[in-house]
Amino acid sequence: MLAPRIDVHTHLLPPELPRWAHKFGRGGFVHLEPAARDAAGRVCQARMVRDDGTAFRTIDANAWDLDARLVDCDATGVRVQVLSTVPVLFSYQARAGDGLEIARFLNDHMAEACTRHPHRFVGLGTLPLQAPDLALVELERCMGPLGLAGVEIGTHVGPWNLDADELFPIFERAAQLGAAVFVHPWDMLAPERMARYWLPWLVGMPAELAVALCSVLFGGVLERLPTLRLLFAHGGGAFAGTFGRIAHGFAARPDLCATHNPKPPSAYLGAFWVDSLLHDAAMLDVALDLYGRHRVCLGSDYPFPLGESQPGALVDANPRLTPAEQAAVRVGNALAWLGRDAADFSLGDAVR
Amino acid sequence: MLAPRIDVHTHLLPPELPRWAHKFGRGGFVHLEPAARDAAGRVCQARMVRDDGTAFRTIDANAWDLDARLVDCDATGVRVQVLSTVPVLFSYQARAGDGLEIARFLNDHMAEACTRHPHRFVGLGTLPLQAPDLALVELERCMGPLGLAGVEIGTHVGPWNLDADELFPIFERAAQLGAAVFVHPWDMLAPERMARYWLPWLVGMPAELAVALCSVLFGGVLERLPTLRLLFAHGGGAFAGTFGRIAHGFAARPDLCATHNPKPPSAYLGAFWVDSLLHDAAMLDVALDLYGRHRVCLGSDYPFPLGESQPGALVDANPRLTPAEQAAVRVGNALAWLGRDAADFSLGDAVR
Repeated sequence: MLAPRIDVHTHLLPPELPRWAHKFGRGGFVHLEPAARDAAGRVCQARMVRDDGTAFRTIDANAWDLDARLVDCDATGVRVQVLSTVPVLFSYQARAGDGLEIARFLNDHMAEACTRHPHRFVGLGTLPLQAPDLALVELERCMGPLGLAGVEIGTHVGPWNLDADELFPIFERAAQLGAAVFVHPWDMLAPERMARYWLPWLVGMPAELAVALCSVLFGGVLERLPTLRLLFAHGGGAFAGTFGRIAHGFAARPDLCATHNPKPPSAYLGAFWVDSLLHDAAMLDVALDLYGRHRVCLGSDYPFPLGESQPGALVDANPRLTPAEQAAVRVGNALAWLGRDAADFSLGDAVR
Repeated sequence: MLAPRIDVHTHLLPPELPRWAHKFGRGGFVHLEPAARDAAGRVCQARMVRDDGTAFRTIDANAWDLDARLVDCDATGVRVQVLSTVPVLFSYQARAGDGLEIARFLNDHMAEACTRHPHRFVGLGTLPLQAPDLALVELERCMGPLGLAGVEIGTHVGPWNLDADELFPIFERAAQLGAAVFVHPWDMLAPERMARYWLPWLVGMPAELAVALCSVLFGGVLERLPTLRLLFAHGGGAFAGTFGRIAHGFAARPDLCATHNPKPPSAYLGAFWVDSLLHDAAMLDVALDLYGRHRVCLGSDYPFPLGESQPGALVDANPRLTPAEQAAVRVGNALAWLGRDAADFSLGDAVR
């Protein structure tokens, strides 16, 4: 009998996507094509295809089918999934109005999924961050009529890292609205250096998260917005394993590192959340000690192959966590990040 | 009384550098300008300046003055420094012949330093890797008449990662000659994403090392050359903290990861060396467990500010290492990587 748990890192997309490239008259988007059908003729596998015809990824029905997800959840102790879109759909490269249309489409779908199963799913919206004014409008809609718990954002928006002045009003409003913000890598850096071996996923994503975390901390975003609730995917990526170097760099060269914020990065440990998706028992310990046992949330990257197939298996197996800390990592820390209560999900039995 | 130690990661440059930009009629090089003089009128501080006039770094006399280095070594228990050039001098962007001239100049200087203090300094050469045929010739000179122990190479050579076919003959010959190869980050990826906060050093360098390690392992370099002795700087950078993700990625998507080598990256743990420069006691433990206690060598990045000011302080303070393992990390592992004997450096007392 698996202990009940919230999975903060799961991706959902609609069963069909408009052909945005046709509609908007320019490329850079992904669409879906049926890849397999079940005995009843329903699509049970789909290909995510880029406009240029190259394959992005083949996905199974649990990427869009809520019933299939609930079957998986019930088998793995997951009482609640925090849903966010697949980052390739962020579409920050789109024109402002096009980006807003995409975000509205995805967010409407997300809200509908959560409305159907309000005790099992809680949703994060996506924002057209390339157009901050429009992103602010959509953020209001996410946190108002759509009833989402927050938003998922990329580790960068084109040339803007997360310390960009252009993005600050969005963080500011997210803090005011109590929106949970999930920071997920996308559009990974230096593709010309990572053509082989899935390196954008294995090296690029961890580096993206390190850039994002350093930008937020050195840029003073959390200094100016101490109530902003950020959660970084993949245990913060390369940040945890290189924090010693980062902290030493700040101390050694404040002329280069403390240009926007005099406080060292260590001042913000405990001020943000990460998920537990580290695939390594020793690194989970490093993360728990570094970020704090109240700041690591179970996250699995469901339903994707780089995820943890039994969400939280590494957490369950950790001998250093007390039962109360186990429950916190499985449930309580996620509720604190989301700004939700155990009663919202009938999870009273899961928090001690 | 500090235990005797070898420092595998120290940088040396000549007291003066030719104005290569003038000589070669193109830019991309660094030269030295006096920045301060001592009471006797000798230059005691210099600026490393790019051809475009922008400052790269200010350095003290211990970057070139052997006597100053020996004073520091004697104060910190360092019996032997492994010397390598400053990576900005690799100059892989230069034309082939120009690159060879630069390498010859730097290697002549390196060999002279080691000849002056053969029990205290052991040198690594640099190669014009952008011209593999010339690099092979210079490798022979390094390992023959110059008496160096091996070479220092960058994490990439322009667009080539370390799995490039162009570079394989150099690794092959290095293995045949018994050359120790020190892999050091340089020319860090995605500069457009790292304009602030010294991010090329804090995030770019660790990512460079992860790209380099993945390229060597997934590319089958160590599979084809099991006797090649590679040491990766900075404890392998981001690799240690993200190894779980990398190994899981290989298992999850062999179609993308096992394209050049069917063996998983875990097959090569213990087959290469790293230095101990992690600035984090917990990550030093992770590295010792991951790479093996016989594969971590004390390295400090002397004399630079991101280094460990007391070389090996983190190793000395590690309570999990037995005295024999401490001696191995301080001395024995470095000798094995270098292909040298304790007697070569009068280090008989330092290895148990």
